[in-house]
Amino acid sequence: MSIATRPDIISFAGGMPGNELFPVEEIDEIYNHLPFDIKQTAFQYGPTPGYPPLLESLKEYLKKKGMPVETNRLMITTGSLQAINILGKVFIDPGDLVVTENPCFIGGISAFKSYQAILHGIDLDRDGINVPLLKSFLDQSKSRPPKFIYLTPNFHNPAGTLYTEQRKKELVPVLQEHDLMLVEDDAYGELYFDEEARKRVVPMKTLYEHELDICYTGTFSKILGPGFRLGWMLVPQEIYQKAELCKQSMDACSPNFTQVLANEFLRTGKMELYIIKMREVYKRRKDTMAAAIRTFFPEEITWLEPKGGFYIWLKLPPNIDITAVLKASIEKGAVFVIGKTFDPEGKDNSHIRLAYSHTPEHKIERGIQILGACLKEALKRPA
Amino acid sequence: MSIATRPDIISFAGGMPGNELFPVEEIDEIYNHLPFDIKQTAFQYGPTPGYPPLLESLKEYLKKKGMPVETNRLMITTGSLQAINILGKVFIDPGDLVVTENPCFIGGISAFKSYQAILHGIDLDRDGINVPLLKSFLDQSKSRPPKFIYLTPNFHNPAGTLYTEQRKKELVPVLQEHDLMLVEDDAYGELYFDEEARKRVVPMKTLYEHELDICYTGTFSKILGPGFRLGWMLVPQEIYQKAELCKQSMDACSPNFTQVLANEFLRTGKMELYIIKMREVYKRRKDTMAAAIRTFFPEEITWLEPKGGFYIWLKLPPNIDITAVLKASIEKGAVFVIGKTFDPEGKDNSHIRLAYSHTPEHKIERGIQILGACLKEALKRPA
Repeated sequence: MSIATRPDIISFAGGMPGNELFPVEEIDEIYNHLPFDIKQTAFQYGPTPGYPPLLESLKEYLKKKGMPVETNRLMITTGSLQAINILGKVFIDPGDLVVTENPCFIGGISAFKSYQAILHGIDLDRDGINVPLLKSFLDQSKSRPPKFIYLTPNFHNPAGTLYTEQRKKELVPVLQEHDLMLVEDDAYGELYFDEEARKRVVPMKTLYEHELDICYTGTFSKILGPGFRLGWMLVPQEIYQKAELCKQSMDACSPNFTQVLANEFLRTGKMELYIIKMREVYKRRKDTMAAAIRTFFPEEITWLEPKGGFYIWLKLPPNIDITAVLKASIEKGAVFVIGKTFDPEGKDNSHIRLAYSHTPEHKIERGIQILGACLKEALKRPA
Repeated sequence: MSIATRPDIISFAGGMPGNELFPVEEIDEIYNHLPFDIKQTAFQYGPTPGYPPLLESLKEYLKKKGMPVETNRLMITTGSLQAINILGKVFIDPGDLVVTENPCFIGGISAFKSYQAILHGIDLDRDGINVPLLKSFLDQSKSRPPKFIYLTPNFHNPAGTLYTEQRKKELVPVLQEHDLMLVEDDAYGELYFDEEARKRVVPMKTLYEHELDICYTGTFSKILGPGFRLGWMLVPQEIYQKAELCKQSMDACSPNFTQVLANEFLRTGKMELYIIKMREVYKRRKDTMAAAIRTFFPEEITWLEPKGGFYIWLKLPPNIDITAVLKASIEKGAVFVIGKTFDPEGKDNSHIRLAYSHTPEHKIERGIQILGACLKEALKRPA
């Protein structure tokens, strides 16, 4: 993150909110109105599953979204990365197969690999994971079936993809046939940019709870602040018990201090108001980046305009040397992440990820101009 | 922890500070004087090794204590349990042997077991681990040497033991001969009760850095608050690199929000003042408990008066049914932890741990009276 935070450089690299967007005043107000005994509780260990009032507030919140909170168990984790890591620890033995999307969230890749999983990535297209490819892979893997499939149907990191209803529906019989558990990562679902997208962010955990085994993960990182290190998992009872034992031996409990604050933020409705504002901010940033890409990027570069989330994912023409583009771009003052980072097999050499989430609009335009010039230059001199 | 926090019960169970002891006012003052941009940073992701200003302040703090901070690397972890868990992940393959003290911190036991280590506990006596027993075990295990030894030389949890200088010295050639790495847990070293103990809490990491391979862990849980979930490890460079990769895939970074506050607490000298007060409080609580034990417990029960830390560890006469004592004691209003919990092999049936750290003095006396009556009752009816 050192380049990404160099003040002279325009960064499209890190997948985080801009510092200027955090609800500092709201948390100030909450902190200063906490009863003394609640502050004391904030300093103390909490139960491994989470600070009970936060579990209650979050349960209410998820229930309103139609999630099956009564028939599953909720656990607060130290970021949703810990939730993903714990599920890896519960299910993966060395050499086990795990299916992911390709591209895939780097935290998922590193968590699963840390338990010595073999990852197999299935391509994403504009509507979601490629189901025929998945089906054919699962058919071939019957003698050694994967432990689970890890998907991010809402505003995928890095691809920005929002799954269609149809694509989610098509997945169901395939996962059923192969009795394949789904780990559904919903880090970005709240950050939709329009009505149509809002209707489409319904988690598979809500839609297909009765058809599939689904472990659902979420996070406060994008709707409060990553520095709180708070995420959650909503999982079936028998998985929950193993997950709780894992968490007990990992960090005993997530920080009570930030759980107390997150609970007030959520419980008092401040979070919903904050998210409404953030949807607008991120949409403006996305619009600015999209317009600048149309203006400054060579036409050979293809991409889809995201309907929510933090990222634009671009496919470069063949024979372009991405590493050279990155180097030139950093020299001229703009940084991004190359696609290889998000390939579970580390091979991708044709994509880049641009995050618009933490860069103000005037800088987005300038940075895209810089990067566009570097791309045009690289196209003149194919690798 | 549900019984331990029942308001009608006097708890000697949990190993935590009392809620009434936390430096709430100090942290209030710190929070309300944070510059706005630092508050924003507190909401953001931080680097995996830790919030850089906290790393600097902590380095200074440890340096003043004579620790080899220049030739090792420091990493902030989500509680020192995460540090211990990460070292487990770095070193343990399923079936590997790990040596611990017997009794042993339950977090260490569960972390190492979660990586499928086989634990072998070596008895503690009043001066530290029994070195001849350790030596003989290591001599027998040459064909399958343990991966490391995990020790808590300062105010051991649960045994309260403070290693003598002599015992630490005797350990050195044994660990050297067997090329055995030491994981040194120093969660309680700051909480000494007198000058003699102060002189004896010098970590082995300080004393024997050149003689041994030592991974040192520490925590803010006992000198600020467990709810901050902040600990650290100070380890050699090559171990650090593997540990950082582990942490990256576990929770990416520890909470920046609490790291920012902990840094100010440490940097401004508030922590040192707070610790001075806490030493007095815990000493008074220990004195009260010790006096009450002398008054109310049967003479057959043996124990050592601790020179620091949170715990008194008591040995019961044979043929006493500890589980029945625990049950009777809870019914009458006092709770503690039975020794089996801290035995790496789960067999101990003759000890109990009493924590005086989170119970005010008047309750300590009453609780010991209750427990004393139950113990006397049990002695009348041997199991």
